[in-house]
Amino acid sequence: MDHQQNDHRQAPVRIAIVGYGNLGRGVEAAIAKNPDTTLVGVYTRRDPASVRPASDAPVRALSDLAGQRAAVDVLVLCGGSKDDLPVQTPQLARDFNVVDSFDTHARIPEHFAQVDAAARAGKTTALICAGWDPGLFSIQRVMGDALLPDGATYTFWGKGLSQGHSDAIRHVAGVAAGVQYTIPVQSAIEQVRSGVRPQLSTREKHRRECFVVLKPGADAEAVRRAIVAMPYYFDEYDTTVHFISAEELAREHSGMAHGGFVIRSGATSAALKHVIEYRLQLDSNPEFTASTLLACARAVHRLHRAGEIGCKTLLDIPPALLSAKTGAQLRAELL
Amino acid sequence: MDHQQNDHRQAPVRIAIVGYGNLGRGVEAAIAKNPDTTLVGVYTRRDPASVRPASDAPVRALSDLAGQRAAVDVLVLCGGSKDDLPVQTPQLARDFNVVDSFDTHARIPEHFAQVDAAARAGKTTALICAGWDPGLFSIQRVMGDALLPDGATYTFWGKGLSQGHSDAIRHVAGVAAGVQYTIPVQSAIEQVRSGVRPQLSTREKHRRECFVVLKPGADAEAVRRAIVAMPYYFDEYDTTVHFISAEELAREHSGMAHGGFVIRSGATSAALKHVIEYRLQLDSNPEFTASTLLACARAVHRLHRAGEIGCKTLLDIPPALLSAKTGAQLRAELL
Repeated sequence: MDHQQNDHRQAPVRIAIVGYGNLGRGVEAAIAKNPDTTLVGVYTRRDPASVRPASDAPVRALSDLAGQRAAVDVLVLCGGSKDDLPVQTPQLARDFNVVDSFDTHARIPEHFAQVDAAARAGKTTALICAGWDPGLFSIQRVMGDALLPDGATYTFWGKGLSQGHSDAIRHVAGVAAGVQYTIPVQSAIEQVRSGVRPQLSTREKHRRECFVVLKPGADAEAVRRAIVAMPYYFDEYDTTVHFISAEELAREHSGMAHGGFVIRSGATSAALKHVIEYRLQLDSNPEFTASTLLACARAVHRLHRAGEIGCKTLLDIPPALLSAKTGAQLRAELL
Repeated sequence: MDHQQNDHRQAPVRIAIVGYGNLGRGVEAAIAKNPDTTLVGVYTRRDPASVRPASDAPVRALSDLAGQRAAVDVLVLCGGSKDDLPVQTPQLARDFNVVDSFDTHARIPEHFAQVDAAARAGKTTALICAGWDPGLFSIQRVMGDALLPDGATYTFWGKGLSQGHSDAIRHVAGVAAGVQYTIPVQSAIEQVRSGVRPQLSTREKHRRECFVVLKPGADAEAVRRAIVAMPYYFDEYDTTVHFISAEELAREHSGMAHGGFVIRSGATSAALKHVIEYRLQLDSNPEFTASTLLACARAVHRLHRAGEIGCKTLLDIPPALLSAKTGAQLRAELL
């Protein structure tokens, strides 16, 4: 295939959104910013009449997707990595080109194998893990490793709300509601940026900050101890727990800002060091992830037209395929 | 082709270096850090007996390259963009897979067309502009534009020595020797990072600093005025000129550190802004560029084996192709 021949005079890429939560709404917003794409429908497991999209896109039951293959170029799957995507992505990849933001790092090889088998069986094209981590950060980790093989890579997350850790504190006895922020340790970032390659423990890289609303009569100190000692989630970190009112939680902690850093530090010869740093500062984790998913849907559509079937990740995608511009435009304007 | 099937059990990629200056020496150093590559020879226009490589690689005359096609997987071209590469890259691409770091932005479409024609005629694979700008920075400009289409991209260079501007000051009457540093304006970087999208003039983004050794009897003030008023190179910048001794120039200004920033600032909806920042801090511009060229040579070799001929840029290269690791390894360890 000739990636250089991206043709922007093509008909718009027809996108369908599966799942209409924060991520699905973000994909809808992204389509409005990308005139070479068009939204042909929102598919939901809820009662379609109960879902009101921001645009005039039709809302249909997920079960109505069957038979829509000819009307949809790419499905953007907006479900969760824990329960939805491990089932939905392989299932839908049999009949549709799909893109997802699966983000359970430990289960990626398994998810890849299942989606790849389904896509090859159905002769479709799938792109998984197409968010920022895994996704954009993965590109930086791979390129850093390739460009400076004698080196070390450091990933820092935050400041941002971690959904998994917030869920974990909400399961502690006595907790009515709560959120958890992952915060990178600034002195660790500065140390890495300086070009030394420190060995950093889990505790030295990130700290955790929790804002908790107690149930009536709950023992604050017992709740605090239960949180900070929780294995895997908190015990290896310095964790601060703040107790606040439900009103303050709603007012101050409803944002979805996030971000992070990938830093590669390496040497090309004895005396010469280099540092590559990639940083995201995101006002909204789901809206930025959605915008990334849409650029990936464009790439999936092009790969499929070029006959490339099976499962891919962002590591397999030439940057030009993400762009609406032609190869000649990119070379003249942005190279 | 299946990019996921990178096979690291292959024989090493056989590299030949064309041109043995700072960049060529850097490629030799990079090969020592990448055990899946091997240096089969250094080719030079100088008398081969006068060139002493750091390794035990054979040195041969450039004219001896003819007929070596079967012994070389990829030629890494280490000449200059002004005089060498516009001639060498198309010429050698007829018979060899090649990679170059051509960096005259305005002439990229022309260079691309010439190399593409040669590579297609010879059924070879070429990758041009494979340094950090153009190259790695271009990837960030294209991805930023694709991920946040409602946004603005800012490229800052430095602090680093500019070869072109240093040459320009050395041509001023009364100048015996000199160097020029391009320095990004820190307040402009901070403004862009904050998420506003300022309109920045040339003068507001970078300043220029020159260190000049005068010829005996030269008029310092006349030299200063001639430099700061030089059209295109200096007249649109705030330029400082320091006069120093030849000894100080040699002692303090022989380093080749460089770097810069690509920052994309954009919005996904009315209230939500995001900033993507990519930063390089390089102790040695030529050694880092050389390390990038070598990773690109690996990708070129793989593309060629997969039957992809013609001219490419880094915008056409899937990140996984740059890495010595297999697709399965990358997914399990770095995704």
